[in-house]
Amino acid sequence: MMVGSRNASQACASCKYQRKKCDPHCPLAPFFPQHRRKDFMNVHKVFGVRNVLKLTKNLGFKEKSEAMKTMIYQADVRVKDPVGGCCRVISELQNRIKHLEAEYRLLLEQLAVCRVQKQAKAPHLYKQQQL
Amino acid sequence: MMVGSRNASQACASCKYQRKKCDPHCPLAPFFPQHRRKDFMNVHKVFGVRNVLKLTKNLGFKEKSEAMKTMIYQADVRVKDPVGGCCRVISELQNRIKHLEAEYRLLLEQLAVCRVQKQAKAPHLYKQQQL
Repeated sequence: MMVGSRNASQACASCKYQRKKCDPHCPLAPFFPQHRRKDFMNVHKVFGVRNVLKLTKNLGFKEKSEAMKTMIYQADVRVKDPVGGCCRVISELQNRIKHLEAEYRLLLEQLAVCRVQKQAKAPHLYKQQQL
Repeated sequence: MMVGSRNASQACASCKYQRKKCDPHCPLAPFFPQHRRKDFMNVHKVFGVRNVLKLTKNLGFKEKSEAMKTMIYQADVRVKDPVGGCCRVISELQNRIKHLEAEYRLLLEQLAVCRVQKQAKAPHLYKQQQL
């Protein structure tokens, strides 16, 4: 994938945007092939090429790949929502959790009431079961 | 807060870092006073001053303030977790929701069973109630 020289039409989205030669050691080429121009533009707009390179400099390929994915996601969200970004996503998920926890507690109470009622309405059955 | 001239010791964290004069119209001063140097450094490291200014350029003060808060949070998370950033937080919250939903369904089933048992063990009481 990353061997040999790349001509202009094969340049990665980053090098194509910067109008520079995309050599076989281009650090962004594996993550931003030409057809991922939109991803690159978002990441460039939000983080900037220099910051992305600095932030991922000391990571191995697997971690770097994961970091790029998470930055692509974050940049996409920030471009769509310049005020909230991922924080709005986090906040909405936290609200969903609070809501689910409240519903869960309610159900737990209903179950406890049901069990008490079951025992109260047929106490003889429970006594038989206990024998 | 933002009126009058600022001397070197009053310069905001951004201007102090860039060693430039912090004038009363400094766009970052309201969000990065001198004592929030760490927040500024994180935001600068992750997004860069230029990108922050571009991304918030067309926002009103209230929205800009909210955008700065969310970028400060995101930058802090990214500095602590360069691979996952906020995406790891989102992923963990999504897992928590899945877990809660599964627990909720289980409880719902237990409640349904309890109600059926309650009715089966004391059917005469239900008949009386229906009259």
